[in-house]
Amino acid sequence: MDLKFKIIKKSKKNMARLGEFTTKWGISKTPMFMPVGTQATVKTLNPEELAEAKSNVILSNTYHLWLRPGEDIVKKAGGLHEFMNYKNGPILTDSGGFQVFSLAEKKNIKEEGVYFKSHIDGSKLFLSPEKSIEIQNKLGADIIMSFDECPPYPATHEYMENSIERTLRWAKRGKAVHNNKDQALFGIVQGGCYEDLRKRSAEETVKIGFDGYSIGGTAVGEEKEIQYKEVEYTTKYLPEDKVRYLMGVGDPIDLIEGVMRGVDIFDCVAPTRIARHGNAHTRKGKINLRNNKYKEDFTPLEEKCDCYACKNYTKAYIRHLIIAEEVLGQRLLSIHNIRFLTKLIEDIRENIETDTLEEFKEKFIIDYYNK
Amino acid sequence: MDLKFKIIKKSKKNMARLGEFTTKWGISKTPMFMPVGTQATVKTLNPEELAEAKSNVILSNTYHLWLRPGEDIVKKAGGLHEFMNYKNGPILTDSGGFQVFSLAEKKNIKEEGVYFKSHIDGSKLFLSPEKSIEIQNKLGADIIMSFDECPPYPATHEYMENSIERTLRWAKRGKAVHNNKDQALFGIVQGGCYEDLRKRSAEETVKIGFDGYSIGGTAVGEEKEIQYKEVEYTTKYLPEDKVRYLMGVGDPIDLIEGVMRGVDIFDCVAPTRIARHGNAHTRKGKINLRNNKYKEDFTPLEEKCDCYACKNYTKAYIRHLIIAEEVLGQRLLSIHNIRFLTKLIEDIRENIETDTLEEFKEKFIIDYYNK
Repeated sequence: MDLKFKIIKKSKKNMARLGEFTTKWGISKTPMFMPVGTQATVKTLNPEELAEAKSNVILSNTYHLWLRPGEDIVKKAGGLHEFMNYKNGPILTDSGGFQVFSLAEKKNIKEEGVYFKSHIDGSKLFLSPEKSIEIQNKLGADIIMSFDECPPYPATHEYMENSIERTLRWAKRGKAVHNNKDQALFGIVQGGCYEDLRKRSAEETVKIGFDGYSIGGTAVGEEKEIQYKEVEYTTKYLPEDKVRYLMGVGDPIDLIEGVMRGVDIFDCVAPTRIARHGNAHTRKGKINLRNNKYKEDFTPLEEKCDCYACKNYTKAYIRHLIIAEEVLGQRLLSIHNIRFLTKLIEDIRENIETDTLEEFKEKFIIDYYNK
Repeated sequence: MDLKFKIIKKSKKNMARLGEFTTKWGISKTPMFMPVGTQATVKTLNPEELAEAKSNVILSNTYHLWLRPGEDIVKKAGGLHEFMNYKNGPILTDSGGFQVFSLAEKKNIKEEGVYFKSHIDGSKLFLSPEKSIEIQNKLGADIIMSFDECPPYPATHEYMENSIERTLRWAKRGKAVHNNKDQALFGIVQGGCYEDLRKRSAEETVKIGFDGYSIGGTAVGEEKEIQYKEVEYTTKYLPEDKVRYLMGVGDPIDLIEGVMRGVDIFDCVAPTRIARHGNAHTRKGKINLRNNKYKEDFTPLEEKCDCYACKNYTKAYIRHLIIAEEVLGQRLLSIHNIRFLTKLIEDIRENIETDTLEEFKEKFIIDYYNK
């Protein structure tokens, strides 16, 4: 499916762009941050809470849904949107590749695909480019991903070269079997920290031709400087008129840096994961509610935040819930952290509009890191 | 505080009564079921979800809040309603007695109060009638409880006789120090399964004079037949014009039996606790969503239920969430189970109105137990 991606404004000073794409759920504005609903639920939250936190697209994980409840059940339910009753906007599924490489046990990568054991029950499984697309066709998300290898960091140039060539062959095989015209299919660029390989991976993936392009294999343990370079090495070889998706990146500062390098969409489990550990993003840095100093702090997480948590609850109460291991505490912090990132993205969009993103970044860094 | 309890209708066939009482939160209708928010949160839910499930009064536990976050913090927050942002209706706190006797370690019951160790960190603690009221005054709930002993079942007549006499002395001491006129104070009737002791405990508690009367020490392991007798032995010695509260009872059938014996309000952790284990109440009995037969069941938990879970989600999805250990599954089942009980109570009220509670009970039992 063509996402009808439209660039509304391009920065004169960097690669940032303001855009929008269209699905049957309406217009989705970019740049955008997508919360992650691994198992067909953004952990602890319901769709209404996501809507109130101004999130639009959510990501769900093919690997997890394939194992539980199984793609056939989701298909019988009428697809992911119906299954989880998500009507706020589009859903994107990943290919399962990253989870196979990060979660599964005893993996054996062959040309035909990857043999491995389930992280749930140890059963023997096999995932291939064709199988990944077949599962994603059944899950029925609006945007789906090619099956790729996500090599560990660091990987040698030789390993990475072989890996991107295989990922290119896998991308062709996946595209060949993709048979649902309602779903946009994205290709994934790999290549690690090597500019020549990022370039080749990007150019060859573009030659195959996809509805959008993902940047994989960043934020896997490398230094920030290298991470940003990896993004640069990729976006400059990608077509202007297609959506660019930087996978698994959700650090506030990384969103700004990514946008300045031409990225349109991001996803990350971090806002909900750090919430479950009692952490909240604020413009003055990350705070941990377990800290004793919030015991009698009857102010919201952030004074100016418009999220449900900040409008209704105090730090002292959320701290109590987190210490007492009450789920509502995790819910409130998840809502706040998602809203923090969607608000940051709103600010980023405004600053692309006025071409002041560099200045915004400087100020954000000073506030966030108290520098 | 006088609750201005008003009886609207009394059954001609049994002791059931339709009533209402008034607090600054408005009118509360009886019979009523109260969900339990042990640690200043009804587990997994927020106040808006409780309102949508038509709950009015909630119960919170003095023992837990005393230990965490501490009653002084709650008082500084402006009381429990402000602390947890609960504005749907009144809050009731228990005395801490039941928790001391069921949760705490190495308890030593003396005339002055109970010495025991915290279930959280093993620290030495002391709770007395005066201390319980002092904590509850600070927590600031609308309805508070006298400190009582809740003896285990079975207890000998001799033990129980000494126990109720001490509980009566404790009730007087607690009432003497209660100094917040905005809070209604309830006395608690004990006496186990012994009619003479229930009678004495009820009559003497009434002589002390409280704003309402609680029935404690039932549903502690005895047979249902005995449990219902214990209620009967108590309610017949309580004044008509005061609210009667049967503590810790939330089995659907027990609500009906309790109402027929003159009980006005109930509380129980069961609806939210069984939810966290994957169970849902339905008019056709309790079901466990882990059961394989719900794997592809794309119908709601109950076709005619008006709760958020039933209006928006299928058994197959909720089953998936429960199996995958996702919090949203617990939330949806908690919402449904609370709504199941508030709806049952609505039906009970309607059947008191039409004096058809006996018939309603017969039909309910046939449906619920498939008899």
